[in-house]
Amino acid sequence: MSVPRLRLGMVGGGAGAFIGGVHRMAARLDDRYVLTAGAFSSREEVCRATARELHLAPERAYPDFEAMARAEAERPDGVEVVAIVTPNHLHAAPARTFLAQGVPVICDKPLTAGLGEAETLAEFVVKSGVPFVVTYNYSAYPMVREARRRVAAGELGEIRLVQLEYAQDWLAEPIEASGQKQAEWRTDPARAGLGGSLGDIGTHAIHLAKFVTGLRPAAVAADLTSVVPGRRLDDNGHVMLRFEGGAKGLLWTSQTAYGHANGLALRVYGERGGLQWRQEAPEVLELSLRGRATERLQRGVAGAGAGGRLPGGHPEGYIEAFATLYAEFADLVLDWREGRAFAPELLPTVGDGLEGVRFVDAAVRSSAANGAWTPVVG
Amino acid sequence: MSVPRLRLGMVGGGAGAFIGGVHRMAARLDDRYVLTAGAFSSREEVCRATARELHLAPERAYPDFEAMARAEAERPDGVEVVAIVTPNHLHAAPARTFLAQGVPVICDKPLTAGLGEAETLAEFVVKSGVPFVVTYNYSAYPMVREARRRVAAGELGEIRLVQLEYAQDWLAEPIEASGQKQAEWRTDPARAGLGGSLGDIGTHAIHLAKFVTGLRPAAVAADLTSVVPGRRLDDNGHVMLRFEGGAKGLLWTSQTAYGHANGLALRVYGERGGLQWRQEAPEVLELSLRGRATERLQRGVAGAGAGGRLPGGHPEGYIEAFATLYAEFADLVLDWREGRAFAPELLPTVGDGLEGVRFVDAAVRSSAANGAWTPVVG
Amino acid sequence: MSVPRLRLGMVGGGAGAFIGGVHRMAARLDDRYVLTAGAFSSREEVCRATARELHLAPERAYPDFEAMARAEAERPDGVEVVAIVTPNHLHAAPARTFLAQGVPVICDKPLTAGLGEAETLAEFVVKSGVPFVVTYNYSAYPMVREARRRVAAGELGEIRLVQLEYAQDWLAEPIEASGQKQAEWRTDPARAGLGGSLGDIGTHAIHLAKFVTGLRPAAVAADLTSVVPGRRLDDNGHVMLRFEGGAKGLLWTSQTAYGHANGLALRVYGERGGLQWRQEAPEVLELSLRGRATERLQRGVAGAGAGGRLPGGHPEGYIEAFATLYAEFADLVLDWREGRAFAPELLPTVGDGLEGVRFVDAAVRSSAANGAWTPVVG
Amino acid sequence: MSVPRLRLGMVGGGAGAFIGGVHRMAARLDDRYVLTAGAFSSREEVCRATARELHLAPERAYPDFEAMARAEAERPDGVEVVAIVTPNHLHAAPARTFLAQGVPVICDKPLTAGLGEAETLAEFVVKSGVPFVVTYNYSAYPMVREARRRVAAGELGEIRLVQLEYAQDWLAEPIEASGQKQAEWRTDPARAGLGGSLGDIGTHAIHLAKFVTGLRPAAVAADLTSVVPGRRLDDNGHVMLRFEGGAKGLLWTSQTAYGHANGLALRVYGERGGLQWRQEAPEVLELSLRGRATERLQRGVAGAGAGGRLPGGHPEGYIEAFATLYAEFADLVLDWREGRAFAPELLPTVGDGLEGVRFVDAAVRSSAANGAWTPVVG
Repeated sequence: MSVPRLRLGMVGGGAGAFIGGVHRMAARLDDRYVLTAGAFSSREEVCRATARELHLAPERAYPDFEAMARAEAERPDGVEVVAIVTPNHLHAAPARTFLAQGVPVICDKPLTAGLGEAETLAEFVVKSGVPFVVTYNYSAYPMVREARRRVAAGELGEIRLVQLEYAQDWLAEPIEASGQKQAEWRTDPARAGLGGSLGDIGTHAIHLAKFVTGLRPAAVAADLTSVVPGRRLDDNGHVMLRFEGGAKGLLWTSQTAYGHANGLALRVYGERGGLQWRQEAPEVLELSLRGRATERLQRGVAGAGAGGRLPGGHPEGYIEAFATLYAEFADLVLDWREGRAFAPELLPTVGDGLEGVRFVDAAVRSSAANGAWTPVVG
Repeated sequence: MSVPRLRLGMVGGGAGAFIGGVHRMAARLDDRYVLTAGAFSSREEVCRATARELHLAPERAYPDFEAMARAEAERPDGVEVVAIVTPNHLHAAPARTFLAQGVPVICDKPLTAGLGEAETLAEFVVKSGVPFVVTYNYSAYPMVREARRRVAAGELGEIRLVQLEYAQDWLAEPIEASGQKQAEWRTDPARAGLGGSLGDIGTHAIHLAKFVTGLRPAAVAADLTSVVPGRRLDDNGHVMLRFEGGAKGLLWTSQTAYGHANGLALRVYGERGGLQWRQEAPEVLELSLRGRATERLQRGVAGAGAGGRLPGGHPEGYIEAFATLYAEFADLVLDWREGRAFAPELLPTVGDGLEGVRFVDAAVRSSAANGAWTPVVG
Repeated sequence: MSVPRLRLGMVGGGAGAFIGGVHRMAARLDDRYVLTAGAFSSREEVCRATARELHLAPERAYPDFEAMARAEAERPDGVEVVAIVTPNHLHAAPARTFLAQGVPVICDKPLTAGLGEAETLAEFVVKSGVPFVVTYNYSAYPMVREARRRVAAGELGEIRLVQLEYAQDWLAEPIEASGQKQAEWRTDPARAGLGGSLGDIGTHAIHLAKFVTGLRPAAVAADLTSVVPGRRLDDNGHVMLRFEGGAKGLLWTSQTAYGHANGLALRVYGERGGLQWRQEAPEVLELSLRGRATERLQRGVAGAGAGGRLPGGHPEGYIEAFATLYAEFADLVLDWREGRAFAPELLPTVGDGLEGVRFVDAAVRSSAANGAWTPVVG
Repeated sequence: MSVPRLRLGMVGGGAGAFIGGVHRMAARLDDRYVLTAGAFSSREEVCRATARELHLAPERAYPDFEAMARAEAERPDGVEVVAIVTPNHLHAAPARTFLAQGVPVICDKPLTAGLGEAETLAEFVVKSGVPFVVTYNYSAYPMVREARRRVAAGELGEIRLVQLEYAQDWLAEPIEASGQKQAEWRTDPARAGLGGSLGDIGTHAIHLAKFVTGLRPAAVAADLTSVVPGRRLDDNGHVMLRFEGGAKGLLWTSQTAYGHANGLALRVYGERGGLQWRQEAPEVLELSLRGRATERLQRGVAGAGAGGRLPGGHPEGYIEAFATLYAEFADLVLDWREGRAFAPELLPTVGDGLEGVRFVDAAVRSSAANGAWTPVVG
């Protein structure tokens, strides 16, 4: 059976960007999309060059997302899905524009720079009824989903503890001062929002916790730090967590911890067992059940880690997980278009995006109040 | 700058195949190819269904490679590169056909089932002057190439030892008897050739040894075993190696070693240091230099592992390495077409393919002679 | 040259005890002590049986430490050092008694059950001028000391972050209810003190942080939990740390985290590098310096981890580290007796013991105040 | 209950020795022996100094083993067990002397330098009826014994493959030329015997294979190398193995492989599962059973690794395993003395020692015959 490919437009992702290229590889891997149009950069020449490089028709390289929305809406072969890969403060406006036209949106994380616009956007999405996904990509690793299944099946019993960490070292020095583009906007409150490491990577961890355990932080006590002198946003975050229902947790985020390239780790402990998963070795999930040896579950081995593309031992990684979000969103869009029920059980929703921003907001307020326990208002 | 995409044809890779899908993902990832035509299966319906699923024009699904070669040659938009992903005994014929038409070929490994046809094909390729690559994909992992650079730079000094192993467990039971398609042809001498595990996975290891160290086995002493009763080809191989120039080595291949999904490992030791790399953790290379602590080189960190697509800590895997072969072959084809010098320094050549078959041939003869040292004739 | 062996007495360590046996193996390993007398248990028969098993003269098995102190003081061959291995609330009294007689003391951790007695004891020790060591044994692992040297040498630059964790799972169920002796007293405030996991294992981590970095917590914000219903002391602790001088940290202690047998880990990050050490793989220290690959320092290899007893690759463990404290304390005692300067640079002092109790006290108060930042008063 | 301590004499183990100190720590750890007499060195002053350092009575430091045997035999408190820790060629003579006097012997490995004296000694031991143990210490690691139990229980089914390696790097340069004492005798055929790495470390691996699986090599095909120019014995060995009963294997020994301190590893594969154990991480055994995730068995956790001294997660190492041989030999000696049956099920016998020498002999002959399959005659 042949499944139609969706015409994809992209907002952001011009030269010097990192995540735009990732989205494009993710879109290509399973052949569910054809990149057709883009507003890749506010610098016109960059936008055109990017379009040329990507084999787009020249007239479908747009100077801005409004122009793209207008023009594509009038084409019979206009874009059917739009990916938004701009800095945080530039997510909401294009999202609303395309949703208003009935075009499903793939939006990078965190949802927005600030809480107000996150709430507005979330409401807008829900009202629109148009499919929307936030690329909390780590939730698409097969072994993360295996973890989710194990917890859901009750293998660990009721969850007591969720220990989260996400450590990097690329901002251990003030590289934003020398013009590194990724660092520049991520350390700028106007573009990144109130959270630095907390928004950029902490929200990934918080989403993962919920994805695997179903638990959301009810309150936080945070101690955020700008370890690098002069930096305006946190580059290290210590957060104590109290989840709804009584479980507890810790979150450590850092972008200044030498030796960690992209050290996201999740550990969950319940009444009857524990598990751990580390993003830099994503094919493995360690499961420790009461009274038994720790099992080293490996994707593709002995039934673990369904949903991969390759047999066990043939490593899949970051792009593959990202591509899974793209592929599943394509399914969702087709279901929606054809009026079938669409239940994005595994796909991060705008609600997940909103929860991430709420978490950042609460943690920033807690830290400003010297670590006072602060509810994560929902 | 825009680089043209190449029209790709495929021979083999219909339903139930494993490696065909890998080639297609590899071809898509970097957007250097457009799959345009295929002779995916000798079963007509399978071939058509595969073409439909892959969004090919119906007329470009061919019943066999000869039909494809004839028809595509007459089209102005005929295929520009052909990938051959059939069982071993079906590589040579289509390769020769397309090369004869001047169409570059991407050929799966091992080169052929038998030594005679490997030699003939190699000669044919060289005479043709048409680009040809054998998908010894493991050589495209960034950290394998880092290993090659370190050895070439003399960091280990003259190489003394090369210890190779490639262990799997998927054939630990006689699954070929119950019709598993992959197992069926790989355990059938008529289709796989004289080597079982030796040809299927051992040649990967032998290529890796040469790729990293430049050393080729001059003689082998082998003890091949069909561990599973009734199996007609080796599913476990023990081989002692003497390399040209005097270094020595061991190779262990197994498809019956429980606990190993795809355990390819390379260890190299020289006068001044050693290194090791393991395919199931491909982002890391361990380097141990005389008098120093072992360094854990990680792709993308501190300058190691050039050629990746993502920052360090964002795992790349099997598909990415495979895609690198595809992307580099596209460069090669463009250089060749435009008359530029093309030096496939890093791409596995037909010569590499031939050496693999020669190695299998020598090891099989050695084992038949009760492990007598047998020259790998070249 | 021959170094005299010291006659050792022991308080506690009868049948069913764990740590008493460890102290005895530690005392024996390097042949610096001869166990000579003991008040092993308040149950007379247990004490006698223990003495018999240990080849002590029957008259040197004492019903209590006072009797031992009296009798041994009168013997020309009385004990020269006393080891105290009782539950926490029974450390101070015997310590004072023997110190008052001029007998050096090896005291298990934490120093005492309560802060008041810790302060009194510390003052007493200092005034006495008699050698005293607290068995924070993890600080005697060669690779922990390597970490200390690296930090002291400035390799990491100024320290910014200290991440501590100590996770176990042996109390994940209420085993104290079924009479497990170790669990019983450790979960009883009257015997263990105000801290559960915090005192039992958390103080090890806090000592390690100071031992390696020189940093002491100035204030803490804690969220302590009795995960197991009905337990009277914390079996899980989340603590945010602010160190003197401005560095920050996190401490996670747990005795309810399935999959962790004795998971003490130390991670330190500075301006120019980071390091990590894990107790369950104690022979390795990972060092990540700015712009360089992570080095896997191994005890006995390339000059790392001085002070071991065996060549690299011959694993040393818990007992060996413990024995190092014993051996170094013997040196200290001999220096002291002969009027030589004695500077226990590497040995945990009563001051370290006091700091541990102060930390527990502050964390318990912080938790009671809903996580308010609470100074660790010194 | 009190178990009497045995008076221990030692032959060898003076200054500069490595293994003598290990034996002494092993003897002390469990308090089953008291070192009482020694012929530590042929250099009188070294012998006396060693005795003094070890608190021996001066008259019990002997110039040679004959003197020690004579004098101790006449004392009512003469030695009850003798440990022989000299270079290989000096094992047999003292062993025979003490056995002839009815004194049980603990003998370092390999049993002897040559095959003839090994056979003679083995016969002598058996005839004597006096307890004798060869310190193949790795077989006393709790997780090695766990492996043995698992295999014996049939969890892996019939064994098909045994892959052995023992890699070190301390002889990667010709340090024997600069007078390193350990290197000097180990590279000297007159003192070490015909095997270099094969005898020194390879026999450990061969013993381990038998200890865990019960399988003995029936025939070998070997390629031995002196990697370091001018060295007279092998410092690297490649050996193909055919075991009695049909299983196969590989052995790699090296003392020239940079990055390996003491890399002994055992991997066993059967009809239904596989396992692996690595000496540098001795507390863990990985078990992979058909259709199940790999289990990471840890000593002291979930019932694995009986026989340790500490709870799980408190690392035990090389000395502890060595001490287990000593303690079990003490039990054996007491049983023997009191006329009880003594069945040294787990202790390496003189027969094991003889098998090790036979293996070396066969491998050396095979290598001399260019790798011809050579029976291991027994």
